[in-house]
Amino acid sequence: MLEQVSRDLSLIREKKPLVHHLTNFVVMNETANMTLAIGALPIMSHAPEEVEEMVQVASCLVLNIGTLTPYWINSMILAGKKANELGIPVVLDPVGAGATKLRIDSAKKILEEVNISTVRGNSAEIAVLAGIQAEIKGVEAISKSASSEQIAQDFALKSGCVAAVTGVEDVVSDGETTITIKNGHKMMATITGTGCMSTTMVAAFNAVQKNPLVAALGGLCAFGVAGEKAAYYTNNKPGSFHVALYDEVSNLSAADILDRAKIEVTQKELA
Amino acid sequence: MLEQVSRDLSLIREKKPLVHHLTNFVVMNETANMTLAIGALPIMSHAPEEVEEMVQVASCLVLNIGTLTPYWINSMILAGKKANELGIPVVLDPVGAGATKLRIDSAKKILEEVNISTVRGNSAEIAVLAGIQAEIKGVEAISKSASSEQIAQDFALKSGCVAAVTGVEDVVSDGETTITIKNGHKMMATITGTGCMSTTMVAAFNAVQKNPLVAALGGLCAFGVAGEKAAYYTNNKPGSFHVALYDEVSNLSAADILDRAKIEVTQKELA
Amino acid sequence: MLEQVSRDLSLIREKKPLVHHLTNFVVMNETANMTLAIGALPIMSHAPEEVEEMVQVASCLVLNIGTLTPYWINSMILAGKKANELGIPVVLDPVGAGATKLRIDSAKKILEEVNISTVRGNSAEIAVLAGIQAEIKGVEAISKSASSEQIAQDFALKSGCVAAVTGVEDVVSDGETTITIKNGHKMMATITGTGCMSTTMVAAFNAVQKNPLVAALGGLCAFGVAGEKAAYYTNNKPGSFHVALYDEVSNLSAADILDRAKIEVTQKELA
Repeated sequence: MLEQVSRDLSLIREKKPLVHHLTNFVVMNETANMTLAIGALPIMSHAPEEVEEMVQVASCLVLNIGTLTPYWINSMILAGKKANELGIPVVLDPVGAGATKLRIDSAKKILEEVNISTVRGNSAEIAVLAGIQAEIKGVEAISKSASSEQIAQDFALKSGCVAAVTGVEDVVSDGETTITIKNGHKMMATITGTGCMSTTMVAAFNAVQKNPLVAALGGLCAFGVAGEKAAYYTNNKPGSFHVALYDEVSNLSAADILDRAKIEVTQKELA
Repeated sequence: MLEQVSRDLSLIREKKPLVHHLTNFVVMNETANMTLAIGALPIMSHAPEEVEEMVQVASCLVLNIGTLTPYWINSMILAGKKANELGIPVVLDPVGAGATKLRIDSAKKILEEVNISTVRGNSAEIAVLAGIQAEIKGVEAISKSASSEQIAQDFALKSGCVAAVTGVEDVVSDGETTITIKNGHKMMATITGTGCMSTTMVAAFNAVQKNPLVAALGGLCAFGVAGEKAAYYTNNKPGSFHVALYDEVSNLSAADILDRAKIEVTQKELA
Repeated sequence: MLEQVSRDLSLIREKKPLVHHLTNFVVMNETANMTLAIGALPIMSHAPEEVEEMVQVASCLVLNIGTLTPYWINSMILAGKKANELGIPVVLDPVGAGATKLRIDSAKKILEEVNISTVRGNSAEIAVLAGIQAEIKGVEAISKSASSEQIAQDFALKSGCVAAVTGVEDVVSDGETTITIKNGHKMMATITGTGCMSTTMVAAFNAVQKNPLVAALGGLCAFGVAGEKAAYYTNNKPGSFHVALYDEVSNLSAADILDRAKIEVTQKELA
């Protein structure tokens, strides 16, 4: 699988696919820059008057509810439905789902009305969407009654989406195959928006890879390995780490993926 | 007092309180990152449908009118009233108050409808709110008819809020006790949002310290000392200084506060 | 002409003019910081209730449609008309014009209702506004049927605005005089918002220079030279380059302009 990931990384840089984001105000610049760093091109556009037209040139669509309002959710659904019509994959980041009624209702509405390929969130957000008990404090996952592996698998089975659950260890699952990714670094929690950036990475891989499980694996592996490399020389310096993260994503090589990615694959036992 | 500030710094890092921001588009990412750097956790959320629910988990609320519209002011008042109900301190940043009728009216409306703990602004913004003549050019303080000490004390006496006035020297006052803080560096004026970041710092200290005067002192001391340390190796390089500022806030120690903070306390004479 | 540019650079730092931006969410922080780096002061404000009052203190107005909605376009026109009334130059950045009907219609509406001094865009955006065939993919120029020089001159002649067309080489034209600027670096395409930043630079020069062609030349020369200097020690590191770009704009000297700017001036032949 890691060979596929490293081929997809090359494909992103070769094809420079457009990734259309309807995302939150906090990370618009940062996720646009991360899109460029991995080798793709960002579009940030949200007016209901244009999102259906704009998404037509994109190879993947990101819907991120971090600073949601009903106006934005409406635009997200318009863009998502058009993407579905055109076969463009849609990645959802349900930021803070579980923290407020608006967030959980909006995330569920998007999941109902749009055919979502992949949901990337922390364990509490994905647990809430899977109907598993979890504690969320603001937008931070605090505790949960199940492992990230269980949460990812459960959500994938119930929703039909690929689950990409990030945390100390990341987990991706399509319900049948569940992969734990033991990369990343604690520095990634010291700057805002690394969750949203990881969603962007998953989206960039979805723009060139038809199997969303492999794409989710690619995005999270690439981001985790780049984070480790950046933390190597910026440990305990969040400002410097933030800068280094773009440098390292931009310079990530196939060899980095093959040498450094640490994954464990488990198959669901047949019932 | 500085011993208390250094204890509060430790408390922020131990408790990781949530600081809910309704702030301007220019600094959302930067103030979220500064919240993390000092050791607290940011929430950025503004929809009127959710702010009352979201603020319930916060330990402090920031209302910053930098890119205000009536829609945002409405959300700020909703969040502020709910915070008041729950005893959560509210810090107001009246960006550009005095520059336009909308800004002065909005700042006054918030002050009337919400019980504000602390107002952090430049001398012109606070002077305008205190009814003292001052000149503001865009969002920059240009001139004023009184010293920052007088402005801070006057505003605090009239409003019942703690005043935190930033500039070449910072001043905090509750009307009775006025403290001048001789830290900070001219580099802090070379990047946008350092005023808003200082408000975030004051808010983070309010999240763990019940005396808002001590919290304002803590926030501005911590930020000023970190700014000096960052400027030491990035002088005249605003991009590098911006990065270093997060690094230094993140690495600020109790010893830094005790060794480097330069404050002067004056008590109002009894009438 | 370069002597004039270096004098204008000094004037910006001496006068610290206010540049009022109505710009997109992705680059608000970045363009505010670039305004400060060149020596001017940013105002970011967009509420229809205040833009006409706010623009009165500005020396230049930027209208950037990157994340446009009809609400924002309305505010842009209000601010633009008031700027016209007061003789304040207005610089338009028609981000993504040609990508959607909303964008082309909005850019044209602004050009009809506001007297625009200068339009800064990539070659596809300016070509679309000049009625020349061009291909735009999202917000990126892909191909065009004419050279940047032809596009700039055509647009300037048709619209009466100065055209500032950025790309591998930049071109400014007032229809009679066309200047090619052979500065800049490929690293400038690796971070988001360099187009918007170049618009800000053009605006800062317009704030002190009455001839918009000279101002456009100044803004693009200054930015291109700073970009080259930044790339010299941050090549292939987009995060580090982004930081260095602020440092280099801030430290740009008259000598840098005179020694490094590479321009070619051509005059339109008389018919």
